[in-house]
Amino acid sequence: MPASYAYLGPEGTFTEVALRTLPEAATRELIPYVSVQSALDAVRTGEAEAAFVPIENSVEGGITTTLDELVAGEPLTIYREVLLSITFALLVRPGTALTDIKTVSAHPAAQPQVRNWLRNHLPDVHWESAASNADAARLVQEGRYDAAFAGEFAAARYGLEALETGIHDAENAQTRFVLVGRPARPAAPTGADKTSVVLWQRDDHPGALRDLLGEFASRGINLMLLQSRPTGAGIGNYCFCIDAEGHISDRRMAETLMGLKRICLQVRFLGSYPRADIAPGEARPTPAGTSDTEFMAAADWVARCQDGRF
Amino acid sequence: MPASYAYLGPEGTFTEVALRTLPEAATRELIPYVSVQSALDAVRTGEAEAAFVPIENSVEGGITTTLDELVAGEPLTIYREVLLSITFALLVRPGTALTDIKTVSAHPAAQPQVRNWLRNHLPDVHWESAASNADAARLVQEGRYDAAFAGEFAAARYGLEALETGIHDAENAQTRFVLVGRPARPAAPTGADKTSVVLWQRDDHPGALRDLLGEFASRGINLMLLQSRPTGAGIGNYCFCIDAEGHISDRRMAETLMGLKRICLQVRFLGSYPRADIAPGEARPTPAGTSDTEFMAAADWVARCQDGRF
Amino acid sequence: MPASYAYLGPEGTFTEVALRTLPEAATRELIPYVSVQSALDAVRTGEAEAAFVPIENSVEGGITTTLDELVAGEPLTIYREVLLSITFALLVRPGTALTDIKTVSAHPAAQPQVRNWLRNHLPDVHWESAASNADAARLVQEGRYDAAFAGEFAAARYGLEALETGIHDAENAQTRFVLVGRPARPAAPTGADKTSVVLWQRDDHPGALRDLLGEFASRGINLMLLQSRPTGAGIGNYCFCIDAEGHISDRRMAETLMGLKRICLQVRFLGSYPRADIAPGEARPTPAGTSDTEFMAAADWVARCQDGRF
Amino acid sequence: MPASYAYLGPEGTFTEVALRTLPEAATRELIPYVSVQSALDAVRTGEAEAAFVPIENSVEGGITTTLDELVAGEPLTIYREVLLSITFALLVRPGTALTDIKTVSAHPAAQPQVRNWLRNHLPDVHWESAASNADAARLVQEGRYDAAFAGEFAAARYGLEALETGIHDAENAQTRFVLVGRPARPAAPTGADKTSVVLWQRDDHPGALRDLLGEFASRGINLMLLQSRPTGAGIGNYCFCIDAEGHISDRRMAETLMGLKRICLQVRFLGSYPRADIAPGEARPTPAGTSDTEFMAAADWVARCQDGRF
Repeated sequence: MPASYAYLGPEGTFTEVALRTLPEAATRELIPYVSVQSALDAVRTGEAEAAFVPIENSVEGGITTTLDELVAGEPLTIYREVLLSITFALLVRPGTALTDIKTVSAHPAAQPQVRNWLRNHLPDVHWESAASNADAARLVQEGRYDAAFAGEFAAARYGLEALETGIHDAENAQTRFVLVGRPARPAAPTGADKTSVVLWQRDDHPGALRDLLGEFASRGINLMLLQSRPTGAGIGNYCFCIDAEGHISDRRMAETLMGLKRICLQVRFLGSYPRADIAPGEARPTPAGTSDTEFMAAADWVARCQDGRF
Repeated sequence: MPASYAYLGPEGTFTEVALRTLPEAATRELIPYVSVQSALDAVRTGEAEAAFVPIENSVEGGITTTLDELVAGEPLTIYREVLLSITFALLVRPGTALTDIKTVSAHPAAQPQVRNWLRNHLPDVHWESAASNADAARLVQEGRYDAAFAGEFAAARYGLEALETGIHDAENAQTRFVLVGRPARPAAPTGADKTSVVLWQRDDHPGALRDLLGEFASRGINLMLLQSRPTGAGIGNYCFCIDAEGHISDRRMAETLMGLKRICLQVRFLGSYPRADIAPGEARPTPAGTSDTEFMAAADWVARCQDGRF
Repeated sequence: MPASYAYLGPEGTFTEVALRTLPEAATRELIPYVSVQSALDAVRTGEAEAAFVPIENSVEGGITTTLDELVAGEPLTIYREVLLSITFALLVRPGTALTDIKTVSAHPAAQPQVRNWLRNHLPDVHWESAASNADAARLVQEGRYDAAFAGEFAAARYGLEALETGIHDAENAQTRFVLVGRPARPAAPTGADKTSVVLWQRDDHPGALRDLLGEFASRGINLMLLQSRPTGAGIGNYCFCIDAEGHISDRRMAETLMGLKRICLQVRFLGSYPRADIAPGEARPTPAGTSDTEFMAAADWVARCQDGRF
Repeated sequence: MPASYAYLGPEGTFTEVALRTLPEAATRELIPYVSVQSALDAVRTGEAEAAFVPIENSVEGGITTTLDELVAGEPLTIYREVLLSITFALLVRPGTALTDIKTVSAHPAAQPQVRNWLRNHLPDVHWESAASNADAARLVQEGRYDAAFAGEFAAARYGLEALETGIHDAENAQTRFVLVGRPARPAAPTGADKTSVVLWQRDDHPGALRDLLGEFASRGINLMLLQSRPTGAGIGNYCFCIDAEGHISDRRMAETLMGLKRICLQVRFLGSYPRADIAPGEARPTPAGTSDTEFMAAADWVARCQDGRF
């Protein structure tokens, strides 16, 4: 029996399309789960080797369901990310004309990406949220709704046809997915990597968050995502999901994480993994004074000072 | 015809309950709208004097639909906030027993607050998302689903009964609502106020966000919310919705806003308004060197230096 | 009787040479004083309109006697600065050969600038400190010492000849002088100005000095001098004499001074005056977000927000 | 032949008194040198094991001759410091009355500490600088001057008597001396230590110095001295002599030094040594997050993350 990857199903969604871009997916059994939570639980229980779930998109930002699952519970680690450009097709049963459409369905996450299109083309349509875009397509197949927004690839699976393709309110609409497993050694650094952490502040005072971010800034590390999430301790209490450029095996990132660990109430390391937005070698150079070479030279110098050899 | 307040409907939701805690609501016509967007549009078009919508809760954090509407489009201003403690009742048609429940419905926002309760009491139930908790109650009334999570106050309206009350996964579950109108002079300072802004960074470099937050920190201003929202320019591009302690008529806040205006690509002022979490007079004292008195004394001193009178 | 300028005498020193480069010196009586203290006291008592004294040189740094006089006592203001390149001549009575020289004299401040020259050319000579270089020349004239280091211009006055000229251990040896008067309106901004202040910290804690400097840094202001001086409250207690680029009439400098005034125990404004090292128009441009235009636009925007007109 | 300590002579100065407070001085030959430079050169050439020189006093601040010698040339290391309270006696030949005194002599460093006393008691006296206070006493003995300011202990040596003792303009006048040797392993940490370094900035831009100080501040390290010294590259070019609380073997200090080494053009380590102002055990506790225990726990945590064991 091959190792399996859990993914946010059902089949025929953007998630599955993104997952299949990973070479390692070809050798695994890919199993759809009904929710991000159940897919991640499958990893936690050992039922699946890894789970593949959306974590950020260009319209909604950080996907809170996924972030909240990574923030809490048994620790998990991100090993890979995939970026997928998102455009929607309007799927209907063959023969349906635009003017026939009274109800349309899709996952709520699709709504902000098709809102303007709907306003312009189907201003009076009734929207029904579905558990997934694929589910919406199924419900159209079953005749419950007139049309669904989904990936064009879903048309064939549900015997539908695409009345319109390439629908996307926002240019450059993309979704970022991550492959998540149980904690193990991070992927090797490629030179263009990203590190994800969750930070809980020790206390709340003017400058507290500024000082956390200073641990990154003073070591020349750029932030790629900062998403606050409620801690569960009541309104106004937040932890911070942060993605930053670099790999935990980079000296500057390791020292940054040490600094955060010291000044935060808690830090959860979510992984270091290759960036999907640029190729290795395309990362901008580290600012002066923050390369591994400079860190090692500095550590060596301090060691020599401690020994009186300088 | 009285002036009207738009609010996120339908009737019988937590939003309506929260709105009715505002004294000024008693003298307005309260009109439910189907979405945050439509309620805010009613203000923008002049159809309503103000709109009342949820903006943050202790489980989901910032409510992105509302934030995104305030971030974009014609500027609006927040004049009031209301905090409401949230607990759910499980509403059923009279005679239904717990063991009869196969399907349950509520707004997706309710899900994280009832998840554990469901796991413990109805592990096999099928969840159906509804447009609102009140809508879920209506669908139960109509027989479409077996049970709905909603505020206990909704039972009477829909002829249901509460099989269980006080359901809330998270202790201290609260939702924060805001009363939003067209731009005008902010509410007068009370001594315990909050200022909301949206910041767009000029460019992205290590330390950019740290420096933005430094404008607050160096003037002793505490942050209450920092929520990143996509700018629409593609994945990884964010603006920041920030709530901070203090009123724009406070010198330290005015100078902070000036600093942000200078270093940001764009700043949108969303309002200064009384805090709902503490009473006037309960706000913590301003740190040394940041009171209005000290700001005025410093300005006066600089003016005297400029004049050679010191 | 013309107004007089006091200067650090005696006649025939670099100070007098520097003072005579000021156009306004041509119309004043120039009166030498025996010490910086007495020259400044002459201003304080009204005996002199202004005093001209050295304040910094490239070998010794800030001249502590002058700084301490400006730091304490009745406030004074700097109106002008002059930079003078310093090289020494070795002055002897006519007929003296290098090999005849057993004793050499000069003001102690000359010593670091001629130390290497002495080591190489007169390794066994005996050094005698004098109250000024001109005084050393006078003592050579009187036959008390064999040679004096002084400006070449002093040779004629004391009937000496220069055995060697252009002596200076450090390349680019320069001394900076200031014209100091009673407090009045600062010189008008030229576009290339400098502001001098003295700062006393409110308390001493990790980051206290960093935060003071942050008031300059966050407004894009470069520092030109930071000289700590004892406060008199015991060893380890310092105030800070700071020169920074810009004029108190610049918005960014005015706001910086306000910030310092608020967070410091005490701030003494020592003046804004034209820089002598560069011409007006040669100053580097202000960093993005810190020009007067941007400050005024930001203030205007905040005022409009306060009024509800945005 | 015992190892020798060089010290700033001549005999009978405060320096010798301070040196004799060190237990190890009892077993060394103590050799006076005519200047700080020559005493330190004796260490550099191996002629002396160590040199004992003044480095800071409560009236003049950092003693620039000493700092400049430590900043440049062959590296030296500070191993000990001594604090000595300074008060002067007015020494005269037996029989001299206050009214007989026409000339008074002392080292220029004494002048600011006796200035007010002179103004009040001998307003018309003529001041003559001497190479040292002891030298001034000798010149009084020889009849060249009428009185000298020196330590009371110098009276016996030169056959003088103290006409007045306890003279000191500033309360709490103290001088700090250091014992300097060739580089070797620093003194063991005592729990109340000080580290001295010299920093040269990589380039000069707004915030450059603030960022250097940020390396200390972000790790909770308090500064005890910041003295700028000219680099020799022309007026306005400074390096910074810094004394900071803590020992190079403290994790937070080691990491601070590493950070400085990375971002500075050059760092010179001048030593870690016990503080003379407080006893071991009296140092204030390290701020939260900066103890050795917390640094080690953080390093251990990062190592575990790197290994996938968390």
